[in-house]
Amino acid sequence: MDETTGSPAALAMIGLGRMGANMARRLARAGVPVEGYDAQAASRDALADEAGLRTHASLAAAVAALPSPRAVWLMLPAGETTGSTLAELRSLLSPGDLVVDGGNANYLDSQRRAAELKAAGLAFADCGVSGGVWGLENGYCLMYGTNDADAAARVARWARLLAPAPDRGWLHCGPAGSGHFAKMIHNGIEYGMMQAIAEGFSLLEGRKDLAFDLGRIAELWRHGSVVRSWLLDLTADALRDPDAMAALAPLVPDSGEGRWTIDEAIRQGRPAPVIAMALMSRFDSQGGADTANRLLALMRKGFGGHAVTSAAKADR
Amino acid sequence: MDETTGSPAALAMIGLGRMGANMARRLARAGVPVEGYDAQAASRDALADEAGLRTHASLAAAVAALPSPRAVWLMLPAGETTGSTLAELRSLLSPGDLVVDGGNANYLDSQRRAAELKAAGLAFADCGVSGGVWGLENGYCLMYGTNDADAAARVARWARLLAPAPDRGWLHCGPAGSGHFAKMIHNGIEYGMMQAIAEGFSLLEGRKDLAFDLGRIAELWRHGSVVRSWLLDLTADALRDPDAMAALAPLVPDSGEGRWTIDEAIRQGRPAPVIAMALMSRFDSQGGADTANRLLALMRKGFGGHAVTSAAKADR
Repeated sequence: MDETTGSPAALAMIGLGRMGANMARRLARAGVPVEGYDAQAASRDALADEAGLRTHASLAAAVAALPSPRAVWLMLPAGETTGSTLAELRSLLSPGDLVVDGGNANYLDSQRRAAELKAAGLAFADCGVSGGVWGLENGYCLMYGTNDADAAARVARWARLLAPAPDRGWLHCGPAGSGHFAKMIHNGIEYGMMQAIAEGFSLLEGRKDLAFDLGRIAELWRHGSVVRSWLLDLTADALRDPDAMAALAPLVPDSGEGRWTIDEAIRQGRPAPVIAMALMSRFDSQGGADTANRLLALMRKGFGGHAVTSAAKADR
Repeated sequence: MDETTGSPAALAMIGLGRMGANMARRLARAGVPVEGYDAQAASRDALADEAGLRTHASLAAAVAALPSPRAVWLMLPAGETTGSTLAELRSLLSPGDLVVDGGNANYLDSQRRAAELKAAGLAFADCGVSGGVWGLENGYCLMYGTNDADAAARVARWARLLAPAPDRGWLHCGPAGSGHFAKMIHNGIEYGMMQAIAEGFSLLEGRKDLAFDLGRIAELWRHGSVVRSWLLDLTADALRDPDAMAALAPLVPDSGEGRWTIDEAIRQGRPAPVIAMALMSRFDSQGGADTANRLLALMRKGFGGHAVTSAAKADR
């Protein structure tokens, strides 16, 4: 039997937020018995009517509901939440059980965790998951790393159900850490692509005399152009509302993967200037350039007597 | 009658290179009588067997074969070639005739040419065309500008045949110049998106210990990921040959639109740092950073006594 197919094994899905809830739904609808857990009662209750999906009020209860060997899939915020959940799981699981971290952990953490869990007899796979809130309908793109061939085959059985089709959109990338490494790079590319699209539309909008309809341009470029892409599809969707941007502050958060991509570029000594610049532009939008800009204004005043603008009067 | 539909009017296609030849084929196959001209006999001969498409050995002959009012579509290199052809056309055409420039002209040239041709009684539309060598099969994305409502309606009748579908992938963007302006911005976005993808794959390739198969990662991300895009499709195609990169010099030409996009950002005083950085990276690949890098090496030697590398010994 092909170990990547066969009847779907039960799974505990830990973390039922936007990503985890829809992944749990997609697996349950494909016939996988899913035991769900989230610390928030509201997140559990939202899945109450989903056939094939049971929710539990504790991590221990979700794990206890699983047949052996157990499989636990985490969809939690990276960092402390994932770390403390993994620590609790070590006391709940037994040798031969499998943990998949589907969150956006730093791959260095995942490499360390793979080694720690292996020492406890537990298999581990780090799995990057892309697709956002559209994954329930379209399927997710999954990239995972593990040194354990048996774990790789087990993950494949769920991956082929979560992916857009059984034969594509999922990959065992390589050794421990390689799944989260690939996801980190994927998100770095995403930063650069998003920024390029945003800059272009800004320059279209800047030419009031040419009166571009940004929504129609985005829709136009979706068909036959070189820049057609899912990010452009989302842009066209968003711009269908002509007032979509008016109510927004021009502030772009960042959540780790862009920073880690540039950390990696520095580690390798390989340039990634566009991804770095996209990241720096987000810092700028967050107000991170204010000190430097105040200092530049002071320097211009100092050497050239140029006017400065007081904080009270600034109205850009 | 909807002026954008109706029986297709004849057209002269001037410039039968990679873009013009396939556009002529696509129009002829849709029933448009096409009179083709290219200065190169080989380009004309390549279209000899195409039904509905005649080629001519001179611009004058191609124009003379058209019914009145005439329509001439240029697919020529921007700059001198387009300019001299337009000058020749002014002596061949009559008031009421239409010229469409489908090349990648600078929009400032197109605005000037629209005014000059209008003074001679000729209608003009500047039309950006995207789609590359795949357009024959997939259709082209067309964005055009003209102040002339009649010209806009005439262009629409061919655009709906060239586009991927009659109701999408083409747009009358606005006044004279707006078509080539939109295409310039489209290509600027393309620079940034390409560079982001390239940087990400470079960082994957840099981790030999994780042994990523770049072709499989590109193929993976085509399905369900946030970065799925036509440029990624092309990347996956190219990387299917594992030796595709080995034979290449790491040199990336540029052909004008990236530079003009940054000219425009400067004109507007709006930042486009990722597009600018993608352009600067191309200059770097062309050797444009060599003087600055030699100077930096000399400075490091000067203040820190750091070793320098002689040109004869450099082996990166």
